[in-house]
Amino acid sequence: MPHIKLPDGHAGIRGAMAFRPETARPLNDLVEILLHGPHSLSAGERELIATYVSYLNDCHFCQSIHGAIAAASLNADEELVKRVKADFQHAAISEKLKALLVIASKVQKGGKSVTAEDIAQARAQGATDVEIHDAVLIAAAFCMFNRYVDGLDTWQPHDEAMYRERGKRVAREGYVAVSKEYLPAEVAAH
Amino acid sequence: MPHIKLPDGHAGIRGAMAFRPETARPLNDLVEILLHGPHSLSAGERELIATYVSYLNDCHFCQSIHGAIAAASLNADEELVKRVKADFQHAAISEKLKALLVIASKVQKGGKSVTAEDIAQARAQGATDVEIHDAVLIAAAFCMFNRYVDGLDTWQPHDEAMYRERGKRVAREGYVAVSKEYLPAEVAAH
Repeated sequence: MPHIKLPDGHAGIRGAMAFRPETARPLNDLVEILLHGPHSLSAGERELIATYVSYLNDCHFCQSIHGAIAAASLNADEELVKRVKADFQHAAISEKLKALLVIASKVQKGGKSVTAEDIAQARAQGATDVEIHDAVLIAAAFCMFNRYVDGLDTWQPHDEAMYRERGKRVAREGYVAVSKEYLPAEVAAH
Repeated sequence: MPHIKLPDGHAGIRGAMAFRPETARPLNDLVEILLHGPHSLSAGERELIATYVSYLNDCHFCQSIHGAIAAASLNADEELVKRVKADFQHAAISEKLKALLVIASKVQKGGKSVTAEDIAQARAQGATDVEIHDAVLIAAAFCMFNRYVDGLDTWQPHDEAMYRERGKRVAREGYVAVSKEYLPAEVAAH
């Protein structure tokens, strides 16, 4: 049972967002830009960073839903998502994304863990400053989202089919559009 | 030197925000609501939570600027801010705020560290569900902001007078208003 009384029937972060729509709006705006908006990294690549950090933080809801969005963005390749979580250095992803995942895993430990060598390695694989910035901010943001979801002890169903269906929808429509389902119209619509 | 080329002359998070105004906007909107907007907790109390989490994460810029905003919101009581960082259980703050700081310190470690007893203790001191929610989200958000600021190795001056002056201004005007100084007008103005 969640630590505070959250509206029923909304899994994970959606319950917390429905409880406090004022903060839900900037949170949805942030992930929309970082994960779903136009970018030189594909949505699938960015979702893999979010999934990996959520896995490191052991957040069931976040790693499940972002893993499902990542898979939906990557030709339904759920095996690739599992492989990235288990051993991304040997997954079928670009060397650039591997270098960004190294940076993200350092950010998960703490910002000071990122070294000049980590950055040089990402640059050597073609990462731009915006890509490095966004890898750092995606990792940092999921250190927030994971703590928000687990810190309130939200309801986190173990239902792969639910995450798969939801993942397809977010991959297609984006975070702000889907948030209209559980946020008041005047907050969600913008 | 920062890990990526950030605009010169902006300390800490402001350099990163000036580099990427698209994400700066929801980040400023989030702290405006959490720390500066109307609330049953005073701005000073909320800034103390942000300062304490930034201290636990060892982020010089964030603990300095939010410590200064907290002091500016608390009759310029810089000693109180130092006392909260060193030993909040014996600081001259309410028992409710102490209980919320316990929750925030658990969130800093990881969301799953928050216990039902921590929540019960806060409720026994009169904390509402919104106050508990916001303490969790402030703590989680500063686990993001601290990692963002340190993960990019931003410029973090050691200049108490600068933080003091800046702190007074943010306490008076708020985050979104002050962000107009370093963000493009079309992003900052809303």
